[in-house]
Amino acid sequence: MADKRVGKQTIKLGTPPTVISTASIVGPKEGDGPLRHTFDLVIDDEMWGEKTWEKAESKIVKETWSRILEKASKAPDDINYIIAGDLLNQCIATTFGLRGSSVPYLGIYGACSTICESLGIGSMLIDGGFADNVVCITSSHFCSAEKQFRFPLELGTQRPPSAQWTVLGCGGALISNRGQGPYITHVTTGKIVDMGTNDANNMGGAMAPAAADTIVNHFKDTGFTPDYYDLILTGDLGIIGMSICEEIVNEMGFNISKKLNDCGLMIFDRIRQDVHAGASGCGCAATVFAGHIYQEIMKNNLKKVFLVATGALLSPTSTQQGETIPSIAHGISISRTLN
Amino acid sequence: MADKRVGKQTIKLGTPPTVISTASIVGPKEGDGPLRHTFDLVIDDEMWGEKTWEKAESKIVKETWSRILEKASKAPDDINYIIAGDLLNQCIATTFGLRGSSVPYLGIYGACSTICESLGIGSMLIDGGFADNVVCITSSHFCSAEKQFRFPLELGTQRPPSAQWTVLGCGGALISNRGQGPYITHVTTGKIVDMGTNDANNMGGAMAPAAADTIVNHFKDTGFTPDYYDLILTGDLGIIGMSICEEIVNEMGFNISKKLNDCGLMIFDRIRQDVHAGASGCGCAATVFAGHIYQEIMKNNLKKVFLVATGALLSPTSTQQGETIPSIAHGISISRTLN
Repeated sequence: MADKRVGKQTIKLGTPPTVISTASIVGPKEGDGPLRHTFDLVIDDEMWGEKTWEKAESKIVKETWSRILEKASKAPDDINYIIAGDLLNQCIATTFGLRGSSVPYLGIYGACSTICESLGIGSMLIDGGFADNVVCITSSHFCSAEKQFRFPLELGTQRPPSAQWTVLGCGGALISNRGQGPYITHVTTGKIVDMGTNDANNMGGAMAPAAADTIVNHFKDTGFTPDYYDLILTGDLGIIGMSICEEIVNEMGFNISKKLNDCGLMIFDRIRQDVHAGASGCGCAATVFAGHIYQEIMKNNLKKVFLVATGALLSPTSTQQGETIPSIAHGISISRTLN
Repeated sequence: MADKRVGKQTIKLGTPPTVISTASIVGPKEGDGPLRHTFDLVIDDEMWGEKTWEKAESKIVKETWSRILEKASKAPDDINYIIAGDLLNQCIATTFGLRGSSVPYLGIYGACSTICESLGIGSMLIDGGFADNVVCITSSHFCSAEKQFRFPLELGTQRPPSAQWTVLGCGGALISNRGQGPYITHVTTGKIVDMGTNDANNMGGAMAPAAADTIVNHFKDTGFTPDYYDLILTGDLGIIGMSICEEIVNEMGFNISKKLNDCGLMIFDRIRQDVHAGASGCGCAATVFAGHIYQEIMKNNLKKVFLVATGALLSPTSTQQGETIPSIAHGISISRTLN
């Protein structure tokens, strides 16, 4: 029997895994933002000595993987699974970045929700007795993403105010069945939600209903109220999407206004750094979690966090064919202690 | 403790899940092949009434999902997770096909290894107490894949003898913690293997070392010998890849010559249907498993099968940048009974 299920979408982990170590590497623009001191490494330029943006992104994944292991004093042999993915077609940033790892690999695709999808699956594999240690990683790269999803950077195409800036960064974590926290206590897996939005330049707006759905169902499943958390943190809704999400959740009877923030509003100074509606990309939630949030939890400044990474499951082809934007949001509940 | 691990890469499921139902939908060419009577539906043309190949592929995914539920007499509400993915950029065949499902969704990307990756994760989620019922689905579409990965079909580009023909088809299964088999007893998760091959027109050759690695490690982990199985079935190595795989595994001390076959050699009549080295695509292993193999197991003609779906983790961009082809193979062990 599925005795670890709580409600329709949520798992309560029997023996909550510990986040043993995290690592993050970001690009120069992220390194110029408000969270600059929270990352492990800020690279000087978008190529990082490679010949293409895609190869640079793979290198960032590879180096983040190394740092996660190093910070936990683990060897690749200690890791039972890597669960990872990215935004590039066929997830090549990840597969090329990790091809030398020699660790069983589960590739996932959840667009910008990837970090929470991987931490969720990883937590279940550990709690189920299938793994001792799992590494979860995801990345995005502004240049490789713009080239693939939008326009050649060289064109200098103007961006509408609702557009978001894809984070150049990779973040990840090692989770384990041994440790004294922070613990992943609950996993709320999202459903695909498509409310008919079709503006690929307003991804936050498209993803907001999915984020709201996951947040509301997390409360319904667990019986928690917003008071349970110090912070409810969406992945990359940006300024437009976050306010839509807040409104929907409040309308559904859960007032999250005092608890809600968004990684896409934290990593850049939105005005000074001219990123329009905020940041986006798999690397956004991943690096903000692996850096700032994890550090604040370790310092006891945050005790309970609900991290809800959000993904827009479209492609340039679907947009060209006039389709709307299916979205998803996966949530994990992180707690400093088990009290 | 990870007490369900056996060796480095394998899980022995404590309470092996049952494959309750399967379904498959294929295109006209597959419907003209030797396995024509094993599929649930053969569609008449590649568009299936839609305006684009991509929309047709999504429709096939949606209809396969419906049939899997129908054959098991289940409603969407009975399903705890869908685990699915496909070959299209950002996995849009799957996300658009399943956007109306209202079921928690875990998107994965394992190229043509997807069906075994999904059955493997799904089996662990069930055995770990996280789910009662999981649906695993994957698809590919010859036309959408050729357009994306190779050349416009209208060009009529000549294909080298080592090329494989992407299956137009979707296959999937419902696995459950209730049932009398066939059971998924073991899961062997693959590592990324890159032996330096860079010929994107010889994917079978590129994937063969990954398949061999998973097969050999499955034997080492479990202590099984090839005699344990009635059939060791790779996903889509084709005629070239299968012979390389056989040679590597035999050299490693396990003679699989009498047990080995390949879904990519079963679904088409290779000579009459002019598919060169065989079939490929996520839909290849998925539809052969969901149709022919599942039916043979249910008839007791096959009692123990090791299904090893194989994936090439490249993209057109990585090939254009001169990269080699990282590959992976995930294995699941299926047994008619628990004796």
